[in-house]
Amino acid sequence: MEWNHKNEEDYSISLKNIIDAHNLIAPFIHKTPIFTSRSLNKLCNSELFFKCENFQKVGAFKIRGALNALLSLKKEDLSRGVATHSSGNHAQAIAYAAQLLGIKATIVMPSSASQIKVNAVRNYNAEIIFCKPTLQSREETLNEFVSKNKSVFIHPYDNPFVIAGQGTVAKETLEEIDNLDYIVAPVGGGGLLSGTSIATKGISPKTKVIGAEPKGADDAFKSIRDNKLYPSIEPKTIADGLLTSLSERTFNIIKRNVEQILTVSEENIINAMFLLFERMKIVVEPSAAVSLAAVIEHKDFFEEKKVAIILSGGNVDLRHLPWLE
Amino acid sequence: MEWNHKNEEDYSISLKNIIDAHNLIAPFIHKTPIFTSRSLNKLCNSELFFKCENFQKVGAFKIRGALNALLSLKKEDLSRGVATHSSGNHAQAIAYAAQLLGIKATIVMPSSASQIKVNAVRNYNAEIIFCKPTLQSREETLNEFVSKNKSVFIHPYDNPFVIAGQGTVAKETLEEIDNLDYIVAPVGGGGLLSGTSIATKGISPKTKVIGAEPKGADDAFKSIRDNKLYPSIEPKTIADGLLTSLSERTFNIIKRNVEQILTVSEENIINAMFLLFERMKIVVEPSAAVSLAAVIEHKDFFEEKKVAIILSGGNVDLRHLPWLE
Repeated sequence: MEWNHKNEEDYSISLKNIIDAHNLIAPFIHKTPIFTSRSLNKLCNSELFFKCENFQKVGAFKIRGALNALLSLKKEDLSRGVATHSSGNHAQAIAYAAQLLGIKATIVMPSSASQIKVNAVRNYNAEIIFCKPTLQSREETLNEFVSKNKSVFIHPYDNPFVIAGQGTVAKETLEEIDNLDYIVAPVGGGGLLSGTSIATKGISPKTKVIGAEPKGADDAFKSIRDNKLYPSIEPKTIADGLLTSLSERTFNIIKRNVEQILTVSEENIINAMFLLFERMKIVVEPSAAVSLAAVIEHKDFFEEKKVAIILSGGNVDLRHLPWLE
Repeated sequence: MEWNHKNEEDYSISLKNIIDAHNLIAPFIHKTPIFTSRSLNKLCNSELFFKCENFQKVGAFKIRGALNALLSLKKEDLSRGVATHSSGNHAQAIAYAAQLLGIKATIVMPSSASQIKVNAVRNYNAEIIFCKPTLQSREETLNEFVSKNKSVFIHPYDNPFVIAGQGTVAKETLEEIDNLDYIVAPVGGGGLLSGTSIATKGISPKTKVIGAEPKGADDAFKSIRDNKLYPSIEPKTIADGLLTSLSERTFNIIKRNVEQILTVSEENIINAMFLLFERMKIVVEPSAAVSLAAVIEHKDFFEEKKVAIILSGGNVDLRHLPWLE
């Protein structure tokens, strides 16, 4: 594997890297709209701006990091194909980006992955290798494939190009909305939150960056609180995009740049998701609703503030909506 | 009642009326976005432009007609308050518009109306009078109230100001997208389709206007086919915004301006609605999905054409989505 998460210099991703990433990927992505809602402003007593990455290509911000990583590879590396393990939006993003660039993508997915997710990846002509539904099996299967085929492993978040790509969400937001008090992004592995924090420190230093995390997967909250990187052990949340642990890289970036991690209950995630459907007429996945849930659960914190909320994605099983279960 | 649907001059609503309506209402409404979807283009083998009135104030285009009607009233008429009968989006639109202008609105609703719809109207401080769930009871209750209180009755579609207001949806669409082959709007009472057809004839005469109607409520289809106004008798469709009959006024406008009415099955309405949620990540009501259903059911008709689809609204009971029933 080519990336090296122990290398100190990898921590120094800058606004310049995010600007470069944006120039590279802009022709291939949507500049997603920013929505507002009078009714949600009233409910939260704050001025909210929703960055709608649910409308992004492949239905989530993940395409930004994936495209930046692939477009930043040398030609000879690209030609060997790319690989990753993921059962979520990163899998689709790598598959889509690889198809766009005409290279081969291989995705290691747990045998338990839903048919919807398998089909989404297959639709982009990626090869799927199934493994047992454990982290160990995923990593072993991927390592074996990568060693044999010399494909380039694109990590879902512990990769500087991926982080720089994810930072373009905040860049677009801050270029459109002035004088934000807060920008809120969900945190799982921390790629989006890291990129968001670097972009924000660079473009609008007085805007505070908040991470939003389910109480049932609060490794980032605890890691920042204790200044010690905890893995995510047996996380349990409906926000299935936020089950992963921070890496050393994302932990260090978040520690340096992020004001606070706020945790939210499952009930508030479901409620926020329902409100986004009902009031804003948009489809979001549970992980995306976590940002709004933080503003609702910690109302006093955000009251009378100007707040950007990153809605990370919209890939949800519409046959199993959580308020109907 | 002040309006007179027998008056020939009322039929001559012109583009000028729609432009005037737009100037009047623009400060109070959203200029809704037009979305595209590579995946739906591929599915239909045509180039589709979705005018997202589900994002409109009160969640539907109805606010355009309601506001134009109220803003066009004389001050002394306004001061007497307005009234209507509706259990759907027109009720909310009148209630919202009246609240905005600081006048009284009274809505006659059937006692069978869902709590969601009752609450929506109450939220805008309108007075509700419940009646038996029959057209006769609705009309009698309303007539009695209007005679006694001298309120102004704003008909949901058989009103030239309402029709001119609804025409602003197509005006915005045609100003943004050039060279459309078709523009498709759902048809219930025909207010939206009438306004759409007048705007289109005026702005882009070579664009053909298509009405989309559920097979289970196909009074407009039959009326145009036989050149004879049929009432909607025992309509049965999930598209609950399209149960009403054309009026003489809307029948005559549609007869003159609309290329064709295409009917769609319930299965295709539900399928189209699901696709709009899944692929475009937007929440639409069944009546809004009828336009896309027409493009799917009559694929040959629209193939390789440039087609605008009016998504009329997004007010749907998210606890009872039709693909889950």
